[in-house]
Amino acid sequence: MLTKTEAQAIRRVPAATLRAFLTDAMRACGLNEADAATVGGAMLEADLTGSDAHGVFRLAGYVRALKRGAMNPRASVRVLEHGPATALIDGDRGMGHVVMTYAANLAVELARASGVGWVGARRSNHAGAGAIYAAIPLRHGMVGIYGAASSVNHMAPWGGSEPLLGTNPIAVAIPSGEEAPVILDIATSLASNGAIRSYELEGRPMPQGWVQDRKDGSPITDPRRINEGTYLPMGGYKGSGLSIIIGLLAGPLNGAAFGRDIRDFATPPDGEGNVGQFVIALDVARFVPPEVFKAEVDRHIRDLASSRRLPGSDEIRVPGTGRAARRSEREKNGVPLAATLVAQVDEVAKSLNIAPLSARP
Amino acid sequence: MLTKTEAQAIRRVPAATLRAFLTDAMRACGLNEADAATVGGAMLEADLTGSDAHGVFRLAGYVRALKRGAMNPRASVRVLEHGPATALIDGDRGMGHVVMTYAANLAVELARASGVGWVGARRSNHAGAGAIYAAIPLRHGMVGIYGAASSVNHMAPWGGSEPLLGTNPIAVAIPSGEEAPVILDIATSLASNGAIRSYELEGRPMPQGWVQDRKDGSPITDPRRINEGTYLPMGGYKGSGLSIIIGLLAGPLNGAAFGRDIRDFATPPDGEGNVGQFVIALDVARFVPPEVFKAEVDRHIRDLASSRRLPGSDEIRVPGTGRAARRSEREKNGVPLAATLVAQVDEVAKSLNIAPLSARP
Repeated sequence: MLTKTEAQAIRRVPAATLRAFLTDAMRACGLNEADAATVGGAMLEADLTGSDAHGVFRLAGYVRALKRGAMNPRASVRVLEHGPATALIDGDRGMGHVVMTYAANLAVELARASGVGWVGARRSNHAGAGAIYAAIPLRHGMVGIYGAASSVNHMAPWGGSEPLLGTNPIAVAIPSGEEAPVILDIATSLASNGAIRSYELEGRPMPQGWVQDRKDGSPITDPRRINEGTYLPMGGYKGSGLSIIIGLLAGPLNGAAFGRDIRDFATPPDGEGNVGQFVIALDVARFVPPEVFKAEVDRHIRDLASSRRLPGSDEIRVPGTGRAARRSEREKNGVPLAATLVAQVDEVAKSLNIAPLSARP
Repeated sequence: MLTKTEAQAIRRVPAATLRAFLTDAMRACGLNEADAATVGGAMLEADLTGSDAHGVFRLAGYVRALKRGAMNPRASVRVLEHGPATALIDGDRGMGHVVMTYAANLAVELARASGVGWVGARRSNHAGAGAIYAAIPLRHGMVGIYGAASSVNHMAPWGGSEPLLGTNPIAVAIPSGEEAPVILDIATSLASNGAIRSYELEGRPMPQGWVQDRKDGSPITDPRRINEGTYLPMGGYKGSGLSIIIGLLAGPLNGAAFGRDIRDFATPPDGEGNVGQFVIALDVARFVPPEVFKAEVDRHIRDLASSRRLPGSDEIRVPGTGRAARRSEREKNGVPLAATLVAQVDEVAKSLNIAPLSARP
């Protein structure tokens, strides 16, 4: 286990450098030019906006999955069902970033024609940060919504002790005018898998209430014992219920896995995984004039952000404001990466015969 | 304040009796036959399924609002915008039950034609339990989703102390086969307004963590001090974020109120309220064969419900199972109502010149 000092040695990597590195790595794994750029861009976006557990942090795992065939580098997304406002696509076991980017663009197209578009996917894979796909409709003046049945189960249903539920996330993006768009991206567990894994990586004790012992429900704070526990849902039975709902809509509704059918893509497969996700685009213009709506969202963001704070509180949290600030700071100063992570991906680069991240300007 | 014994004296009222009483009351307030039956049916359904804070419990408040014109008894719902898969309706300040029943049926119609239907409403009012409208698409083999910008603000944004957010609920209903449909209906506060008000009615101390003092964030447990506090969101910043998202989609997207614009319908208005809600219907048949989907949902419900329990846990909580059980028990044995509540609505009946609930067979 790393010492706190080792884990906290930070290097700033320019966004363009990180994008090129990630794209090179994907190309070296067999993705075509366009798909490699899509994945590289989505992973960079996660790192820029602060979804650190969904950026370059995931590279080693993705490369392993691509190498052993758990993810298909040469996937060809196929539309299985197509209606005026809905579609079902088959991701051909490609990287989720490619499948969900396709899905979000298709949802925008449907919403342009019909007002709303709902696109489900089966045979997809982990897609990183949901906010990235929820945000695609924003560029078209639309609301975006994303949900996923996670590719691994860490939560138990409320009252239970078996990990039969994923931390099934939901992300929603709402257009604004001058303010940052409202973007919420949350796991239905109290703490996301990424947050928990970062405590594991750094060897720090976790806060109580994040993970409970499968045997008796007692709190687990030692990150070495994560696998003896289940993650607790946000808001007790409510988060468990949300996880079930999102999981059923992202999984079985699309002919994809849920519950006992989920197989962890990180462990050697005894069969094929089948990750399901959905993305919705909703055209604001079908309801109110877009400029009016954006001005109203701005006004409400300002009302909330400037409202009276609790004593001791630094800020009012409006979803999307923090990520916009991080994005702008990191674009300017580079993405902060732990030295241990840079060393890890340099090893990956060596195995792929591409220039290591640390040697790039 | 009532003693615990007074509050807990319970009377069982047959469902048919309660339905007739509620419908009579609405008719006496000036609703036409069809609308009175819709409201009576929706309020009864809340009482049958255990959303006790949304049933006959609300009658006195609704009658006051109808009498003083805060709600329009002779509302005529109007479609303002209509696309292939979306619509915006004007509720004419009618009772939310009437407006949302209309919205849900319209969403089903749109989803039948286009695969999904998203209907937003402005100038609506409190509609009771969201599950009722989310469940309307179920009868058509569809998924239903409901969200609302509450007509009163009880929550502060995360980090803040001003009540600028409602407990903005979300409800989702997913069709099943032989098992009870999966129905989740949750406020984005840790405890719903209904739960908090029932502690107030019974004069019992509330659990810590439900309400915090606006001055310093310290816990409030004395229900007489509710108005000095704000309700805490579920899952901390996550529930606050969900409330903002649902509020913006139900409010400003429909030209309805949110944030500082919200006026409590229970207090004398200094202007007109403008409650916004939305309902979505999604046709399962556009994704997978409905019979396959229902069988899969059944299988997953059984997997979850029969999975290993935590020591000390009575049951695994699968959303919808409890409400189905309550519904069937209450249809058989009658709806349990506190004697104090029966006395209260008997007074309302007297003012409306209809037969009191306690005098009905």
